[in-house]
Amino acid sequence: MKNFDRKRQTGCPVTYGLDIFGDRWSLLILRDMMLHGKNTYGDFLAADEHISTNILADRLKHLEAEGIIEKSDDPENGKRKIYSLTEKGQDLAPVILETIRWSGKYIFLNKERKALVTRIENDRDGLLAEIHQRANAN
Amino acid sequence: MKNFDRKRQTGCPVTYGLDIFGDRWSLLILRDMMLHGKNTYGDFLAADEHISTNILADRLKHLEAEGIIEKSDDPENGKRKIYSLTEKGQDLAPVILETIRWSGKYIFLNKERKALVTRIENDRDGLLAEIHQRANAN
Repeated sequence: MKNFDRKRQTGCPVTYGLDIFGDRWSLLILRDMMLHGKNTYGDFLAADEHISTNILADRLKHLEAEGIIEKSDDPENGKRKIYSLTEKGQDLAPVILETIRWSGKYIFLNKERKALVTRIENDRDGLLAEIHQRANAN
Repeated sequence: MKNFDRKRQTGCPVTYGLDIFGDRWSLLILRDMMLHGKNTYGDFLAADEHISTNILADRLKHLEAEGIIEKSDDPENGKRKIYSLTEKGQDLAPVILETIRWSGKYIFLNKERKALVTRIENDRDGLLAEIHQRANAN
């Protein structure tokens, strides 16, 4: 389903993308959802990068308002919310994978990250399919 | 040629990318170089987005310091510098094209931009080859 944003219809597609997902913390949340299967507030908070609670809450609200993620009740825990990528959010996977591939060429990565870059290079489509599948299973 | 950045070797490849090219103005400069063949200070200044001279000078310096672009003397005008994308800069083209493709699905674009999205969808490799060719011709 297309979801045109009329307010931004004169904008440049490069800056539109940057406005929506181009901040460090939003990208880290998306990375964790796409590649590490994280889907709760607690999961995101536990990331190595030590996001603060107020920034995390703000970015989740922003990504939800932009239609990139959506939240629902956790059937196993009424107090917990489960976050999942919408179609619009899943469609961002190629941008994130290409960013990782690029960085992989120019910075030294640990073994786990190097394996991810190799996977992107050899099986980009398979990885994309996995990201879609995981998002839609939530 | 690989150009590992030892200072950042423990970083995440997503945030590394964002630190280097993830600001609005850097991306606009890269877009203009990749897709519109712009290669001088005056060219960048004339962009629709009205970048200010101090921001432009700052971003060019930043992109040069990061090894994304390089400058040389214009053989036709000794006072003018020609900017071109390094290999590291050219390697960013997939990130930019995927961002444009994503935005093209979710915002209304004018005819020219829509044509670009169609081109990315149908002839991504041809467009990438063109970007490399243009960069290396400078």
